[in-house]
Amino acid sequence: MLIVMKPDALASDVDKVLQVIEALGFRGHTLPGENRTAIGVTGNKGSVDPAHFENLPGVADAIRVTKPYKLISKELRPEKSVITVGNATIGGSELAIIAGPCALENHDQVFAAAEAVAESGARFFRGGAFKPRTSPYAFQGLGIDGLKMLADVRDQYGLNIVTEAMDEHGVDAVAEYGDCIQIGARNMQNFSLLRYAGLTKKPVLLKRGLSATLDELLLAAEYIMAEGNYDVILCERGIRTFADHARNTIDLSIVPAVHRLTHLPIIVDPSHGTGHNYMVTPLARAGVAVGADGLIIEVHPKPEQALCDGAQALTPAQYADLVSQVRAIYDLVAEPAHAFVESN
Amino acid sequence: MLIVMKPDALASDVDKVLQVIEALGFRGHTLPGENRTAIGVTGNKGSVDPAHFENLPGVADAIRVTKPYKLISKELRPEKSVITVGNATIGGSELAIIAGPCALENHDQVFAAAEAVAESGARFFRGGAFKPRTSPYAFQGLGIDGLKMLADVRDQYGLNIVTEAMDEHGVDAVAEYGDCIQIGARNMQNFSLLRYAGLTKKPVLLKRGLSATLDELLLAAEYIMAEGNYDVILCERGIRTFADHARNTIDLSIVPAVHRLTHLPIIVDPSHGTGHNYMVTPLARAGVAVGADGLIIEVHPKPEQALCDGAQALTPAQYADLVSQVRAIYDLVAEPAHAFVESN
Amino acid sequence: MLIVMKPDALASDVDKVLQVIEALGFRGHTLPGENRTAIGVTGNKGSVDPAHFENLPGVADAIRVTKPYKLISKELRPEKSVITVGNATIGGSELAIIAGPCALENHDQVFAAAEAVAESGARFFRGGAFKPRTSPYAFQGLGIDGLKMLADVRDQYGLNIVTEAMDEHGVDAVAEYGDCIQIGARNMQNFSLLRYAGLTKKPVLLKRGLSATLDELLLAAEYIMAEGNYDVILCERGIRTFADHARNTIDLSIVPAVHRLTHLPIIVDPSHGTGHNYMVTPLARAGVAVGADGLIIEVHPKPEQALCDGAQALTPAQYADLVSQVRAIYDLVAEPAHAFVESN
Amino acid sequence: MLIVMKPDALASDVDKVLQVIEALGFRGHTLPGENRTAIGVTGNKGSVDPAHFENLPGVADAIRVTKPYKLISKELRPEKSVITVGNATIGGSELAIIAGPCALENHDQVFAAAEAVAESGARFFRGGAFKPRTSPYAFQGLGIDGLKMLADVRDQYGLNIVTEAMDEHGVDAVAEYGDCIQIGARNMQNFSLLRYAGLTKKPVLLKRGLSATLDELLLAAEYIMAEGNYDVILCERGIRTFADHARNTIDLSIVPAVHRLTHLPIIVDPSHGTGHNYMVTPLARAGVAVGADGLIIEVHPKPEQALCDGAQALTPAQYADLVSQVRAIYDLVAEPAHAFVESN
Repeated sequence: MLIVMKPDALASDVDKVLQVIEALGFRGHTLPGENRTAIGVTGNKGSVDPAHFENLPGVADAIRVTKPYKLISKELRPEKSVITVGNATIGGSELAIIAGPCALENHDQVFAAAEAVAESGARFFRGGAFKPRTSPYAFQGLGIDGLKMLADVRDQYGLNIVTEAMDEHGVDAVAEYGDCIQIGARNMQNFSLLRYAGLTKKPVLLKRGLSATLDELLLAAEYIMAEGNYDVILCERGIRTFADHARNTIDLSIVPAVHRLTHLPIIVDPSHGTGHNYMVTPLARAGVAVGADGLIIEVHPKPEQALCDGAQALTPAQYADLVSQVRAIYDLVAEPAHAFVESN
Repeated sequence: MLIVMKPDALASDVDKVLQVIEALGFRGHTLPGENRTAIGVTGNKGSVDPAHFENLPGVADAIRVTKPYKLISKELRPEKSVITVGNATIGGSELAIIAGPCALENHDQVFAAAEAVAESGARFFRGGAFKPRTSPYAFQGLGIDGLKMLADVRDQYGLNIVTEAMDEHGVDAVAEYGDCIQIGARNMQNFSLLRYAGLTKKPVLLKRGLSATLDELLLAAEYIMAEGNYDVILCERGIRTFADHARNTIDLSIVPAVHRLTHLPIIVDPSHGTGHNYMVTPLARAGVAVGADGLIIEVHPKPEQALCDGAQALTPAQYADLVSQVRAIYDLVAEPAHAFVESN
Repeated sequence: MLIVMKPDALASDVDKVLQVIEALGFRGHTLPGENRTAIGVTGNKGSVDPAHFENLPGVADAIRVTKPYKLISKELRPEKSVITVGNATIGGSELAIIAGPCALENHDQVFAAAEAVAESGARFFRGGAFKPRTSPYAFQGLGIDGLKMLADVRDQYGLNIVTEAMDEHGVDAVAEYGDCIQIGARNMQNFSLLRYAGLTKKPVLLKRGLSATLDELLLAAEYIMAEGNYDVILCERGIRTFADHARNTIDLSIVPAVHRLTHLPIIVDPSHGTGHNYMVTPLARAGVAVGADGLIIEVHPKPEQALCDGAQALTPAQYADLVSQVRAIYDLVAEPAHAFVESN
Repeated sequence: MLIVMKPDALASDVDKVLQVIEALGFRGHTLPGENRTAIGVTGNKGSVDPAHFENLPGVADAIRVTKPYKLISKELRPEKSVITVGNATIGGSELAIIAGPCALENHDQVFAAAEAVAESGARFFRGGAFKPRTSPYAFQGLGIDGLKMLADVRDQYGLNIVTEAMDEHGVDAVAEYGDCIQIGARNMQNFSLLRYAGLTKKPVLLKRGLSATLDELLLAAEYIMAEGNYDVILCERGIRTFADHARNTIDLSIVPAVHRLTHLPIIVDPSHGTGHNYMVTPLARAGVAVGADGLIIEVHPKPEQALCDGAQALTPAQYADLVSQVRAIYDLVAEPAHAFVESN
């Protein structure tokens, strides 16, 4: 249920609506817009009778939301959300570049990568301290020691830290040491973890699951937001198909679809999305050209020695080249003067 | 890495190999065979260079082990595992039937379903107290109250309780009230949860993820077993494909593949696997005919009123009919006299 | 548009309806049933106004068909179609077994296979003379020479011949030498070929495409039937998914779906559907248990020497064992006394 | 089979190898390199036993060539192929834009679309005269009348004509009236059609099948080329996956993969690839950014009245905007001065 207030509705009208929502045992989320306020209702098990609201003063419309999502919806919030991550933003007028190694391995590797990332002008550093590995016998990450290295990177380079949490303990730790909690593809429907991340104050980077539909991705974001954390960034990282020339199949059509339906930013991960070094830069260009708000890129000082996913990591030189290419494309597609932006 | 010694290798040759393994920081497991000794190497993060070994005295071959699993493997344990769940078993000579409602809703529904399940002669009762729902606004389950109902069902009907845990708190609760911890498809690669379940003493029913390969399913089982809990039952519940006539595509070919590679039992879920009432019984027959060790079936006293997945639930009468059909097929395929069993 | 006549409609009423259909520039297909006659209308580009028909004498109902298929539909013909192939039938009360080598290679191979098939009591022999091979450099089949061998097999063993045609020339040749024209998975949407096959008098075995939905399969059958050839047998042979433990993923849930929607028989191909010798027999059992009307099985006197798909071919001994297993299951599931048949 | 000679192999060693190849009934192709000579073996149906060669004097290695394609390969032809279509080229230094309606409907529609295409500066006009439709009851195209309209478009606007053929008759007709024979996705493995198209002198636009792997696409091209027609242009038009927000999933990673392996040009079809008007322009940008040699775009003077695929057709105004956007991106990525081109 979505309650749209009239442009001239009073603050007291809004309060009255919230009281009715509460009296029904539900929860109201006020979302002020430029011209009018909308109120999302959550907490209802089935559908809510619009009759409860449509005759209240100041109410323009009470809409049964047929799509099962609410808080991510552009109907609720027509303006695009700009998410603050540390001292930078994602979803605003600048292309967000999040770069770093797949897994944190040791001090030298982390700082060599951070050096390259800082030099490129990117504002965000990535690196896994807790690694979700298919095999229990593969390298599982440095854990808290890795997080501490990341905090050192932030201190030294001013980069904002994006790193994955795999469970509640991880969420607490990342919230302590990092700036943005990444939820990985395999946990996209780990609903307990989504809820827990929704209780923190840190923004969440939510990666699309390997076989997640658009609706499932949006509802996973909705899980986080329903707990009160509205700072969600979506990420396309490739889906699982029969195609075998790349590790996953990057599905770039989800970017305009997300922009059409939601106010959330979405970034693209061409590293995991392809799994091959030689494909990363072309697909990064494509991701920016299709309208993504940012990229997440794996860079490793010595890819051939990487403990994890070395085949897809860029060298610092390749990465620097990628950044200059995608910036040129971003200038072209995002510049209002060029009118390339879809009326998303 | 597997090091195969020559038939005439001396005990001192074996010792020398073990010393080299240790010096490299790994662990060696000597596996004497009839004609020759093999030495397994574990503890290595990446691959080990065979050059360390192939010129040592007595060494016939140093083989990079391509398959990454160990504990689930028939090479480790050629006999099929029979898993004890409460006072019954799965994987032995009897077809395991686990039945009950998708979600526990209230006392009457639970006990009406349990009555039907007990009458059919099935030994296991299922019912979700914690429900992983795509939408945060859908019914999420009765929680601990539901688990207590399940414990009452066990007391009254002697049925063994199989129910899902979605997080560590859930694992603790299910371990307290139930007999078998179900890990759902969406959590198949929630590695923290797998490890936590591996620390309990209760058997684990591990459902295949919607886009999980055979290797990923087996390695998820390996995560549980690596913590010391060897009582894992696999479950095929349909994968996600383009096909739209069923909710998921049941992939029955995984049953002979699992039997060929592993010693673990595998059951089939034709309810989630198809999503349509009229398909459940035919696919249950097919699941037993292909060689599954059991079935998990949704039965609901009033499917049209179900809070969750009503479209696929069977009525008690349909369920009773299914049980008689699949038992007849099981007698045919599993009876040693008929020699239908593959040399799995 | 489907026009259902009243039970007591006269032949002259039916004729009148056909005249109106013709006058509108469409084509009428009369399908007499046990209790009443139905008339399918084809040739219309958009929807047809029921008002043209509903007041004609003898007309019970004029139904806009929402599903795009007509001639395959149970609404048109509630009784199951029994297709005559040579001197035997598919879709009737006997399990149809079509067996033989993937590709015809030489006289000895063909006759050794035919010997095994005839001994098993199967009524149909398969073998490819024209082979659709992914690579132009792979063995492409014996062509007309192969078809002549098949005709010899029919003469000697009384087996009915099922073999693939890849183009119009092939359809003509198979219609001359064989008893049933197979259209392969790669040609399921070769609409020119479907139409051409629809103009022959021979039954057509139509294999599901690797990425065909149920609707697409049924509409491919509709292409053949719209030309006047109603003798179509469908075949599930596995779809393309991400799963890599089998060559394709057999989708057995399509069998009850086909039986629910159509009057056409459907058979299952566990050889191509799995691609692995050790999976063929279990999946053949499953195919029969799920309700298929028959099986198509690859058998080769020396699988290890096969020019095509040797990995999935059964030896004559394995094949004989398969036949005895699936017959036992068929007796169980199809026997009316057991009431296992779904009210499809 | 590839036989690699030692650096110090004698000419007589090479001759000896060639004699053995000939004696086996195969053909040897000597490929002298800077440091060593390699000998390719063709004409073999199955794999060749390396044992025939590896002990001959001067032989360093006898390698089973796993990749089954030859003529499309960059190893054969390192320079990129530039395909001449009428009076223009595809694969050269200009972005190829092929545009027009999905289906030809009538003179006014065709010429209104052609007007828009010509104005944009595109060099190629598309439009289906023979339409492969899922349902036999859907509009099937204008046939020869449509082809004549296309010839008129060429005469009036100087546009080169790209149109689909579905069978041999269609190939003959398109070869007569058009400039480039399109083979549609559903016919990508209609091997008889591929061979027939390989016998013409017209270039062929080969669309990737809905579930075709990269290898299968390349081998389909190989079928055409093996008949002597080397003018093949590949086309990515979306694959079938579980994702439901677009009609198909455009798989842009195939573009760098094709450029890496082959000398053939590849274009992208964002119209069929997405099926939604609002996605076409973003994905067209992405296609050019990833490195495609061209685009094929549906434009219709009145999309809402289209007889086929109206939902994805652009209006002339939207199309003009698309062209200006993709040209700007093409200038950026393809301009040698920018060094954006991969060393493909």
